This record gives sequence, C-alpha cells and structure tokens, in this order.
Amino acid sequence: MSGLEIERKFLVRRGGEYRDVAFSASHIQQGYIPAMGATVRVRVRDDHAFLTIKGRSKDGGLSRYEFEKEITLDEARHLMKLCQGGTIDKHRFLVNSGNHVFEVDEFHGDNEGLVLAEVELSNVAEEYEKPDFIGLEVTGDARFYNSHLLTNPYVAWKDTVPEEYR
Amino acid sequence: MSGLEIERKFLVRRGGEYRDVAFSASHIQQGYIPAMGATVRVRVRDDHAFLTIKGRSKDGGLSRYEFEKEITLDEARHLMKLCQGGTIDKHRFLVNSGNHVFEVDEFHGDNEGLVLAEVELSNVAEEYEKPDFIGLEVTGDARFYNSHLLTNPYVAWKDTVPEEYR
Repeated sequence: MSGLEIERKFLVRRGGEYRDVAFSASHIQQGYIPAMGATVRVRVRDDHAFLTIKGRSKDGGLSRYEFEKEITLDEARHLMKLCQGGTIDKHRFLVNSGNHVFEVDEFHGDNEGLVLAEVELSNVAEEYEKPDFIGLEVTGDARFYNSHLLTNPYVAWKDTVPEEYR
Repeated sequence: MSGLEIERKFLVRRGGEYRDVAFSASHIQQGYIPAMGATVRVRVRDDHAFLTIKGRSKDGGLSRYEFEKEITLDEARHLMKLCQGGTIDKHRFLVNSGNHVFEVDEFHGDNEGLVLAEVELSNVAEEYEKPDFIGLEVTGDARFYNSHLLTNPYVAWKDTVPEEYR
C-alpha cells in the first residue's frame, strides 16, 4: 500500500447490494493524530493494527503519497491516545468489480447512515466497471474525509445529501 | 526504544572531551511532520531510517510514550517532503558512563556551535555518573527541542547561553 495512491470515492445508493457480493467484511476503528500537510492515521482492523501517513492531496484529491506499516495492537492502543476527537467506527466490505476492488464503508456512531465506496486506480485515466450500488462521485469533497467525519459528523449535515443516498 | 522514555538533557562544556572516548559516531538528518499533541519525526541515521512518534511530555518533559519503527530510505525520502521548516543536521557520539550511555549531539547549519548531551533513565529517580563534559541541565527547556531548533535556530539566541558552553 506504500506509494502514490489514486482513489475515487462515491456515495453508495440506499439499498445497494454490496453485502451479499462482498468477499470480505471487517471491523475498523481508526483515529488521527492532528498534523499539518499530512494525515497521520492509527487503525485497528479486526486483530491487526496499522500506522498510515498520507501527504496532502494533489490533483484535486485524486493522488497522494501513502506510507503504511503494520504495528502491534499495544502500539495502536498507545498511539490512539494521541489521536484527537475520538475515533471512527465502521464496517468495511470488499467487492470485486472487473479487475478492481471496491471498498464499501458503513459508518457507525455519529456517522451512522453514511455508506461510502472507494476504488484504487493505478493511474488517473484508468477505466473501471462501476457496480450498481455506486452513486454520486465525491472524490476530493472534504466533508467525506474520515478525519473530517470525526470533527463534523454526518448526523449534522446528512440533509444536504440527495435523498437516494440517505 | 518503544515504551515510556525518561530522558535528561544537558549542555556540553566547550572543549569537553567526548569525541575521543566515544564508542560510536554517526550522522543524523531529521525532520518533523507538524502535529498537535505529538512529535512525528523522520530520521536518517547513516544508512538507516526511522519513523518516531512521541506523545506530549509529562512530568516537566522527563517522561513520555515513544513509538519507533525502522523504515526504508526511500520511505524516509518521501516522508521528509511532508516535514516543514527543513531538517536538523547533526553528528551523534555515544559515550559510556557507568551503566549508562550518553548521546552527545553536535549540531550543524543554523545550530552550529550547539552541543547537547542526553541520557536515558529507566525511572525518574535513577542515579547516573556524570562525565566531566556534562554541564547545565536543560531537560524540559523547549528551546533545546530539536523541533524548536528548526524554527528558532541556536544562531539567533546563542548569546543567552552561559559563555562556557558557547
């Protein structure tokens, strides 16, 4: 996962069928150490933990450098104490579509009801097959960054999202 | 190096003899990703690189949680781009004293002339033998934090330090 990362992010249609076709489901808890010009994320995914550092987005949020290392659960527990604004809690489903994998995140807590999908591409122009559940593209929309969802949770602004996604 | 860290820091007397008795000498370049409530450091030490995250100091700067992982030189090169205010450049000498190791740092660039020594202890009350070159204790004095030396280099305020250390 280290390297230059190109991601496109979408809202998932209400009632979209991704759970039944997912080949993986996991629970994710993650927090952020507040940083300038970078995102420093501590994530526990089921029984594994990771530290990730991403640079500031270029190309309107599509591509940025990503560093990731596995860490111990104990290290994650300590580093989570340095995270501010609490943690994001979500379930992630992985769905195959053509040659790509879509990550579908169901958020909980103050972001309950939000379902986002992401696909990682090897270059900005790369084509991909869109599953039916994929809706409006929100790549680069800061409201949907996980770090922003901590400080400005979905519950406060869900009414601004088209009804078909709520 | 992961765990709770207790460090005491000192100015080194001008002309102090640490180079001849050092059992190790290395070159260090390091930068910081600006963060709140934590220090995120990227360090290249000779031909090895490390990512270190330290929590905010407690006990007046004596003890804090420290996370450290070795990373590749290529990862360090990328992460250094996320560091702000440039990098610290120094040589580090390791000197045995009783059961302890003193780290002596000779700074370069805008911090040329500054020489600091640190010793790591296993608890706040632990006793240690002070080598002759050890002078005024500056533990917890923010001016001597490496991260502060980047934004407020020694050249600008060296006259405030007693002459025997300049």
